[in-house]
Amino acid sequence: MDYPSLLEQVVDATRPYLGSGRVADYIPALAEADRHRFGIALSTVDGQVHGTGDWTEPFSIQSISKVFTLTLALARDEGTLWRRVGREPSGTPFNSLVQLETEQGIPRNPFINAGALVVTDRLLTLADPDDALLDFLRGESGNREIQVDAEVARSEAEHGDRLAALTHFLASYGNLENPVTSVLEQYFGQCSVAMSCRDLAVAGTFLARQGIGSTGRRILPSRDVKRTNAVMLTCGTYDAAGEFAYRVGLPGKSGVGGGILAIVPGRCALCVFSPGLDTAGNSVAGVAALDAFTTLTGWSVF
Amino acid sequence: MDYPSLLEQVVDATRPYLGSGRVADYIPALAEADRHRFGIALSTVDGQVHGTGDWTEPFSIQSISKVFTLTLALARDEGTLWRRVGREPSGTPFNSLVQLETEQGIPRNPFINAGALVVTDRLLTLADPDDALLDFLRGESGNREIQVDAEVARSEAEHGDRLAALTHFLASYGNLENPVTSVLEQYFGQCSVAMSCRDLAVAGTFLARQGIGSTGRRILPSRDVKRTNAVMLTCGTYDAAGEFAYRVGLPGKSGVGGGILAIVPGRCALCVFSPGLDTAGNSVAGVAALDAFTTLTGWSVF
Amino acid sequence: MDYPSLLEQVVDATRPYLGSGRVADYIPALAEADRHRFGIALSTVDGQVHGTGDWTEPFSIQSISKVFTLTLALARDEGTLWRRVGREPSGTPFNSLVQLETEQGIPRNPFINAGALVVTDRLLTLADPDDALLDFLRGESGNREIQVDAEVARSEAEHGDRLAALTHFLASYGNLENPVTSVLEQYFGQCSVAMSCRDLAVAGTFLARQGIGSTGRRILPSRDVKRTNAVMLTCGTYDAAGEFAYRVGLPGKSGVGGGILAIVPGRCALCVFSPGLDTAGNSVAGVAALDAFTTLTGWSVF
Amino acid sequence: MDYPSLLEQVVDATRPYLGSGRVADYIPALAEADRHRFGIALSTVDGQVHGTGDWTEPFSIQSISKVFTLTLALARDEGTLWRRVGREPSGTPFNSLVQLETEQGIPRNPFINAGALVVTDRLLTLADPDDALLDFLRGESGNREIQVDAEVARSEAEHGDRLAALTHFLASYGNLENPVTSVLEQYFGQCSVAMSCRDLAVAGTFLARQGIGSTGRRILPSRDVKRTNAVMLTCGTYDAAGEFAYRVGLPGKSGVGGGILAIVPGRCALCVFSPGLDTAGNSVAGVAALDAFTTLTGWSVF
Repeated sequence: MDYPSLLEQVVDATRPYLGSGRVADYIPALAEADRHRFGIALSTVDGQVHGTGDWTEPFSIQSISKVFTLTLALARDEGTLWRRVGREPSGTPFNSLVQLETEQGIPRNPFINAGALVVTDRLLTLADPDDALLDFLRGESGNREIQVDAEVARSEAEHGDRLAALTHFLASYGNLENPVTSVLEQYFGQCSVAMSCRDLAVAGTFLARQGIGSTGRRILPSRDVKRTNAVMLTCGTYDAAGEFAYRVGLPGKSGVGGGILAIVPGRCALCVFSPGLDTAGNSVAGVAALDAFTTLTGWSVF
Repeated sequence: MDYPSLLEQVVDATRPYLGSGRVADYIPALAEADRHRFGIALSTVDGQVHGTGDWTEPFSIQSISKVFTLTLALARDEGTLWRRVGREPSGTPFNSLVQLETEQGIPRNPFINAGALVVTDRLLTLADPDDALLDFLRGESGNREIQVDAEVARSEAEHGDRLAALTHFLASYGNLENPVTSVLEQYFGQCSVAMSCRDLAVAGTFLARQGIGSTGRRILPSRDVKRTNAVMLTCGTYDAAGEFAYRVGLPGKSGVGGGILAIVPGRCALCVFSPGLDTAGNSVAGVAALDAFTTLTGWSVF
Repeated sequence: MDYPSLLEQVVDATRPYLGSGRVADYIPALAEADRHRFGIALSTVDGQVHGTGDWTEPFSIQSISKVFTLTLALARDEGTLWRRVGREPSGTPFNSLVQLETEQGIPRNPFINAGALVVTDRLLTLADPDDALLDFLRGESGNREIQVDAEVARSEAEHGDRLAALTHFLASYGNLENPVTSVLEQYFGQCSVAMSCRDLAVAGTFLARQGIGSTGRRILPSRDVKRTNAVMLTCGTYDAAGEFAYRVGLPGKSGVGGGILAIVPGRCALCVFSPGLDTAGNSVAGVAALDAFTTLTGWSVF
Repeated sequence: MDYPSLLEQVVDATRPYLGSGRVADYIPALAEADRHRFGIALSTVDGQVHGTGDWTEPFSIQSISKVFTLTLALARDEGTLWRRVGREPSGTPFNSLVQLETEQGIPRNPFINAGALVVTDRLLTLADPDDALLDFLRGESGNREIQVDAEVARSEAEHGDRLAALTHFLASYGNLENPVTSVLEQYFGQCSVAMSCRDLAVAGTFLARQGIGSTGRRILPSRDVKRTNAVMLTCGTYDAAGEFAYRVGLPGKSGVGGGILAIVPGRCALCVFSPGLDTAGNSVAGVAALDAFTTLTGWSVF
């Protein structure tokens, strides 16, 4: 496979979508993003890394962090996590409290906000997750400069009433082990990590490599990797997971910063970035690029 | 009307219900209440006060406070309150977040928890409500000893995650003027006021007297009194307001402490107290007593 | 009380609202109504009848029929009706299926469509309700010409998919005694009765007269009359019952034909008619007229 | 791959689950099924067919028919179907009306009942679907004996009030092209087709063979096959699609008759059958067998 040429074809197919969509504007730090930025990176299971466009420029990873915190929690958890959070698509917006009330405090999956808060809470109990997450991302990506963007984190906290509501709601159902304020602080930090397409693709490659990380050590059992990919496919792109499976056909996790991490099991991890979002919160140009990629390669899982 | 004899007949009719229901147990301070306690007081528009049973014993007024905070807010508000809270029965439990999400942060009425938090917030802006509420209750009841029960207030705060969730949720919709913590602290204090049936009936008599208080001063315009009574009738007894109107036929406001304040417009205010609650959160013996009262007197508004 | 002069004052106060609102357009037969038509009639417990405007002109009574079918069912029922339908305001639109699914086939009250279908079904079992309803309306109003408007009934049936959905849904929960088609046919007929303000006010006067009808015979026990008035107040004006209680303060039942029947217990029944509806489905000018009426007379129940 | 030995290993792993779960009992014709029956068949893209247990015994295919009607509709449709039905997991039970009301008559996906009714309606317009479906199933499976089980179809119709409610509800939103009764009759017939594991696996092999049917003709474009597989994975097993993806990791479609059709893209189609259902409506032993199959082969798509 001539990856550089493939990525150029993807960029060509994506060009009409650049500038489309709406930039996330619930916090000032994200609202300033330029909708015309676009990057794509690809990291193969045998160690090749390719990219084009703004692929080395850091952006706010936002909900893509949920894949990594889930990985870290699963690696340490001994069977309690899946009693506190489900694995079903939610059918409701990512930040809805309705589902949580209907289902008595058990979030539908670890990728909606309520579920990710439970994962964060579990990780807070199991490890010192500040270090755990940054250590992991730095180690797997090979980039020691990865940091939490303090301004974004502060901005998230200042506009975090809905997340505070969700967290207190979880606590009211007895589904938190740590104090609300600790969980929220941790959560805001995770979402505010800044990384590039390159770093994310490389750090996510263990999901294409049956759980083996960059340095050859096992990060997750192969069984848990398949399961994580399954949850990404059914729940990873907010309330448009069905559409993403239909168009792209790969496990993927998006963030409102405009990034999407996608996995081709056995082959590679991909990361695209472009800040313009569709109504479900996924990058318009990002989804278009991944759609073009699976059409050109035939590498959908279906 | 021979009120003492009437009240004895009411007590006779209510006896079979004493000990029924479940005591509110979400905080320890309430869970200790004795389900066999029962009191009733009646305060007429011409100044008579009658009572029997545990009618002078203080209990936690809980949501009955919502009538008085609404009164104090309406007396000071200049037309903004009803833009921030509706006047419709909710069709959902008193502490539901679902309705608030469906209707974008506007609580359905001032007597569900979300609506009462908006009223408390409004009152925090308009007056120093600690003093305002206690001053009002002491002044109207003539009992200078009325206090917040500090233990109950502390217990409410310790078990207040669901209310914290509601308050942050309101804030996330921009429907709060004051900080979440201030509103919550104020709210817990109001619910934790301890009063007797006698004190509540006397303090509520202005609602039967077209807005004129104990000392002859006007508390609310007659028009607002009618409206407050209307909201009590349609929304005052949680998700059993239709049943209460059907059986009792009076404006009423209940609290999970076991009290119910009811108004016979033009005649009197009544307060009953018995801690055993039905599934909707209303005092079983209290509703039975008011049912007997309107059956014996024919004084339903219908 | 000088009723003719009172009604003229009401008309004066209502004039600014004439022509406001939207005419019900879900069936052609209603869509042609003139929003500027307005009538009001008043029928006292001692037999006086007054009216002005289009008060003798027949219109489609629509959901006002639900008061009379409830009356007829209650008069014949021996305690099963209230096990099949509740008495709580619904907090949802009148034709919602959501509530029915949430509460397992038990409609919240007899005045939302699902509840009225259960009442109609009960009445189908207990009596020949075609005759029962028309006989009753003709007998109480003294107008032997009252008829079902066949064109409206046919039009209702042709556009009746949502009602058919509700009826099948009730059947699926085992909450129907008669075939779906029979219940629907009956229901469409009831809604399509054409009556004037005069006829409706006179026919409804028993609700102000503690259950005694025009000819002096008892139609309902006094206790059931109070209860019916209570259900009208809490549930009679769709999802705006709280607002109606707040503004008007009387038991009332509206229909999308533009009519509203209201009861002043112990004094009189009123009927207003004007086809322009607000977003909740209540006549804009009708509510304004009743608001003016209770303001002028002070005869709100509160 | 030694398929016969593989299937025996699957059967061994499944044995502990035989007899578990609850048989569908909403119609008598299904309630009689024996929970200890179990069959599995496998049909490869290169024409091998293997099976064991009750793999040639016909059972009621129920919702598995939805895969084939979707295929037939997509093969004939020119772009209108996906405007009338979505592609998202629903997050609600398969027969819920709530979602339909919330989303204004557009079913979330073609595999919940409401969505399948829209597909059936579309197919009624595009072809004579009685013949179309049976012709297709007979042609692809090579079994000319496949029939609708008339007793099951009659039983479905007799207990079909909830489906009638859904269909009228769709009609009320203008999302039907044909009369309610025609759509329902057609739908009941489709669900009542009786087929064996063998027949279903063989008939479904085109979904593993990029759209090429048994006789070498193209049934669907390769792109639509991938998309159909994607919808099966995200929406094919009722409100347990996330769990199925997590445990099994294959596109699959279940029916309350106890069958599940699963696709291994590029390799084979599988059909399992055992009548005991879990609370979501999927065969307990069937899911266990597919779980064992992907564990033994490593052929999950993830």
